[in-house]
Amino acid sequence: MMKLFGYWRSTAAYRVRIALNLKKIAYEHVGVDLVAGGGQQHTNAYGHKNPSHLVPALELESGKVLTQSLAIIDYLDTLVPAPPLLPTHPEARAEALAVAHVIAMDIHPINNLRVVQHLGATFDADAEAKAEWMRHWMATGFDVLNALVKQDTAFAMGAAPGLADICLVAQFYNARRWGLDLQAYGRLAEIEQACLALKPFADARPEAQPDATN
Amino acid sequence: MMKLFGYWRSTAAYRVRIALNLKKIAYEHVGVDLVAGGGQQHTNAYGHKNPSHLVPALELESGKVLTQSLAIIDYLDTLVPAPPLLPTHPEARAEALAVAHVIAMDIHPINNLRVVQHLGATFDADAEAKAEWMRHWMATGFDVLNALVKQDTAFAMGAAPGLADICLVAQFYNARRWGLDLQAYGRLAEIEQACLALKPFADARPEAQPDATN
Repeated sequence: MMKLFGYWRSTAAYRVRIALNLKKIAYEHVGVDLVAGGGQQHTNAYGHKNPSHLVPALELESGKVLTQSLAIIDYLDTLVPAPPLLPTHPEARAEALAVAHVIAMDIHPINNLRVVQHLGATFDADAEAKAEWMRHWMATGFDVLNALVKQDTAFAMGAAPGLADICLVAQFYNARRWGLDLQAYGRLAEIEQACLALKPFADARPEAQPDATN
Repeated sequence: MMKLFGYWRSTAAYRVRIALNLKKIAYEHVGVDLVAGGGQQHTNAYGHKNPSHLVPALELESGKVLTQSLAIIDYLDTLVPAPPLLPTHPEARAEALAVAHVIAMDIHPINNLRVVQHLGATFDADAEAKAEWMRHWMATGFDVLNALVKQDTAFAMGAAPGLADICLVAQFYNARRWGLDLQAYGRLAEIEQACLALKPFADARPEAQPDATN
């Protein structure tokens, strides 16, 4: 059985959990506590699995470890083609990937735990300054998503959920956690709700994970 | 003919230029000056093409505009399959994507111009603090790349250049620009040099672009 090294609150791990569930791939959840004791991701044992010391990492039955959430999801989409996570038409595929990348490249990395910790260490950013930093990049990205997602479909890019929805739902969890004002993002919230009504998404929620602590 | 909206020094645009050249796709270069007059990327005219106000954007002959460098490169790889930019074997593909994503997700977005500008506006970061911020994330990512790239191949992941090399070469341009000490990254520099010896890479260099100013 595959092992997913993750953390309940990591939105990158959340993405992979949704993809595994959509593909109906059973996996073992291995919690890597990013907070307790300074962070288990920094141990040599975890670094041996993932040299970036980030979550998630997916250990295959062969023992090979894959890293980077979107690379892992691309792998799962190849391994189990149905349901497909990206459209087949090349331009539609590029547009769906772009929506996913607005979140996975233009929001999430800038708000990553280690970046926010580095803001504190380098610029004495306090808790409120860190939260404001995170909200700034989420709002900036969500404004772009407002322009890029489809308006008349059940999900972000069409009639079925895919990679764009996976990234959106995970990022919305973070937006709510850090108190982003979501008033301007009604369409995005509608997509989030459509997704969370589905069991593969609901079962992947942070609160539903065995390592969730509050 | 396709139009690439880019900027000579943008490493994301640099990636797309390399991919277009590897695929032998002729394109028109449209410079979007990210610096002059506060930045042409912020205009409404450009925002109409790319709501994220970032470069690059690729306008197809149909007038449709694709955004996000890695989504654009994925599109080009579908449009013109040879030479392939990712391995065919699913695990090898995932590993090559992960190397690309260490750069495109874990380094580049955190060092993006607008993020560094925001550091200045929010935390009074001066030029040296900004450069140190950039070098920190480049070194962090390059340490990971040292562990992930192959040691005994001509290029990062095999005998031919691909997406990982494209991202690496562009990021190395930035590393040299901002004075990162490259002593610990001999293997990565070797890959960079192997790539730059090839015309598709050399022709895509920032200095070779029509909008290069110094």
